[in-house]
Amino acid sequence: MELHIDQPRLEDELDQLAAFSSEAAPVVTRIVFSPADRQARTWLKALFAEAGLSVREDAIGNTFARWVGSDPQLSPVGTGSHIDAIPNAGKYDGTVGVLGALEALRALQRSGFRPKRSIELLLFTAEEPTRFGIGCLGSRMLAGSLSPGAASELRDAEGASLDSLRGEAGFSGDLEQVLLPSGYYSAFVELHIEQGPILDTEGTAIGIVTSIAAPASFNIAIEGQGGHAGTVLMADRKDAFMAAAELATIIERLARSSGAVDTVATIGKCDLFPGAVNSIPSKVKLTLDLRDTDLARRDLLLESLYSACREIGERRGVAIEINQLNADSPAECSAVIISAIRRSCERHQISSRSMVSRAYHDSLFVSRIAPAGMIFIPCRDGISHRPDEYSSAEQITTGVLILAETLAHLANATEYPA
Amino acid sequence: MELHIDQPRLEDELDQLAAFSSEAAPVVTRIVFSPADRQARTWLKALFAEAGLSVREDAIGNTFARWVGSDPQLSPVGTGSHIDAIPNAGKYDGTVGVLGALEALRALQRSGFRPKRSIELLLFTAEEPTRFGIGCLGSRMLAGSLSPGAASELRDAEGASLDSLRGEAGFSGDLEQVLLPSGYYSAFVELHIEQGPILDTEGTAIGIVTSIAAPASFNIAIEGQGGHAGTVLMADRKDAFMAAAELATIIERLARSSGAVDTVATIGKCDLFPGAVNSIPSKVKLTLDLRDTDLARRDLLLESLYSACREIGERRGVAIEINQLNADSPAECSAVIISAIRRSCERHQISSRSMVSRAYHDSLFVSRIAPAGMIFIPCRDGISHRPDEYSSAEQITTGVLILAETLAHLANATEYPA
Repeated sequence: MELHIDQPRLEDELDQLAAFSSEAAPVVTRIVFSPADRQARTWLKALFAEAGLSVREDAIGNTFARWVGSDPQLSPVGTGSHIDAIPNAGKYDGTVGVLGALEALRALQRSGFRPKRSIELLLFTAEEPTRFGIGCLGSRMLAGSLSPGAASELRDAEGASLDSLRGEAGFSGDLEQVLLPSGYYSAFVELHIEQGPILDTEGTAIGIVTSIAAPASFNIAIEGQGGHAGTVLMADRKDAFMAAAELATIIERLARSSGAVDTVATIGKCDLFPGAVNSIPSKVKLTLDLRDTDLARRDLLLESLYSACREIGERRGVAIEINQLNADSPAECSAVIISAIRRSCERHQISSRSMVSRAYHDSLFVSRIAPAGMIFIPCRDGISHRPDEYSSAEQITTGVLILAETLAHLANATEYPA
Repeated sequence: MELHIDQPRLEDELDQLAAFSSEAAPVVTRIVFSPADRQARTWLKALFAEAGLSVREDAIGNTFARWVGSDPQLSPVGTGSHIDAIPNAGKYDGTVGVLGALEALRALQRSGFRPKRSIELLLFTAEEPTRFGIGCLGSRMLAGSLSPGAASELRDAEGASLDSLRGEAGFSGDLEQVLLPSGYYSAFVELHIEQGPILDTEGTAIGIVTSIAAPASFNIAIEGQGGHAGTVLMADRKDAFMAAAELATIIERLARSSGAVDTVATIGKCDLFPGAVNSIPSKVKLTLDLRDTDLARRDLLLESLYSACREIGERRGVAIEINQLNADSPAECSAVIISAIRRSCERHQISSRSMVSRAYHDSLFVSRIAPAGMIFIPCRDGISHRPDEYSSAEQITTGVLILAETLAHLANATEYPA
């Protein structure tokens, strides 16, 4: 079987998808359930239908596009990724794993290949935590890592509930139906840009992911005392922002001194109240995103953080409350999928290496219910979540070829990969 | 002349004014040119008219309500304050100097007093910097401290221009007409809550302001490099927020160690870009409000700040730009006004003390074109710019009595106070 990937068509489709954005190019901002997201979904479903895939959507908007296999009773092979994009992002994160998978299926169709197991292309809802403060919303619910009850309580920054927003976007079914049974997929493979510099620096074409790092995220609320910026003397202040600033410098120091480069900490949001030039902030809300490849090291950092919060709170007379949004365990990828990817690379003499995924992916949650794996392609300078995020059409095409062969192999395997 | 201040009426009017707010009581939020501000202005103009005052408004919305004197050729005595309120504020800041002045005029009228000089009650536009980032907008323009050209370039956070916003509020005249000639007022007296703890702590009824502290305010823009919160290692980051946090802790330390309690520094706003949980901030905008009673000490702190910015910028690989919005000189109050206030206190055996105003007031700018003075009354625990800001009706009434007698004295003086 020789596969031909239609590189110009895939490039063109990535450009078209990037144009569904609430901001002008090159910026891509596509928040889940926004007009841009909804328009992009409509456009994608037409492409799925054109490729002869049968489409269903669940109550949270996860979209399943199935190429029915010759033995439809067998559990299907899954692939896919997400299309939502954080504010001021680029055009490859997630989208390569959706449009790339679609092109992989079309290439297999053109080659005359007929899968035994069905192959299902999945578009996950809200991999990015932008709107609801929790990442991988769709895949979490598929895997039962987020209950329908907890999901129903989610609200966006404007206070709109998940239920009302998904309803407006046309997804009004029962959230209880989102959960997939364990074993629903015989295997799941996600194609994604690395979002880190290793492949680009080394000049390696394919990263074969062996495990996905363990992320944790937190809301930190600090409450001090407001007052007039001119009249409250420094010694009498309980300035919530100054407490937040001190805490941020401590978090940075803890992450830098954990003993491993794999520890990273990010404060991505900082909201001040009342937020006036001449008013001492009485309240601050921070978000903290903390990741490590080692769970014990991450937990050790957290202990130091809690103790720093107690000390700062007492010394400054402010209340600091840390609310853990999630703290997931790392995932190990399936050995059978890893070896299928490796064999495909070897067959084409494409350079590859094993690696850890430092970023958060839907595959992390799919791995709770199915053997999962990931194929990484390089992105320039490791840059992601920015408008200048970039992978070349050749790099993407290579990834799609490896994905297509891996899917073909898994679809015709008679045994579950372990 | 014995004056009777109508305390219940004044209390009631302060309550009514507080109800013009974009947030529910006890919060007062009344941003300039907002519906709440416009409704409050309409209500106030009706009260001015009811008291027989003739009202005119200038192109920026400063409102002049004149009690015409027996010799209308003489330059009038001025009084007044502001009614705009920062987000989440209380009901006494500014308003006591507007409604208190109105009651002072009504009390003088009821007593049978007839002023020789006209007495003009002034409602200043936008004392608070909330909307346009610059405080004392109306009084600055009256005094020529802000040019019509510079004012026309002001925009609010949504990008709406001052010109369009004042136009919508009904103030469409030529900004060139706002400037008052030097000598327009023979004297100007503002009644205000202290916004600090001294009078309340001492149990002193009246503060006689001898000088107004020198404020300076700045926008600080920090530009680093964004990226994915999971994949960019700590050593490779140019996190704009972490740079901002370090800078904030340095600013706090500089203010605390200036050698005088009179140095205060506040970061009231902090905006992150892109502002997503899992994205390293590439840009941060801070505001800095810096005040001192001593200009040289303030300038010394600024030098240290600039040098800290250079050091942080180089070490972290971020660009830090400091843009000075204003840096005003302190004002000395008029000796004649000070002694008129003091004599009135002595006459009634009301406790008083001389003091410095640490807060920013419209009188700071009026002092550029006229002899100016201020009367302070206590506020509980020195709290201001918060919903629990409080002065008792008795404390306000005492202030209004002293204001009324001071205005009467100044209105019948044949010579300018020096």
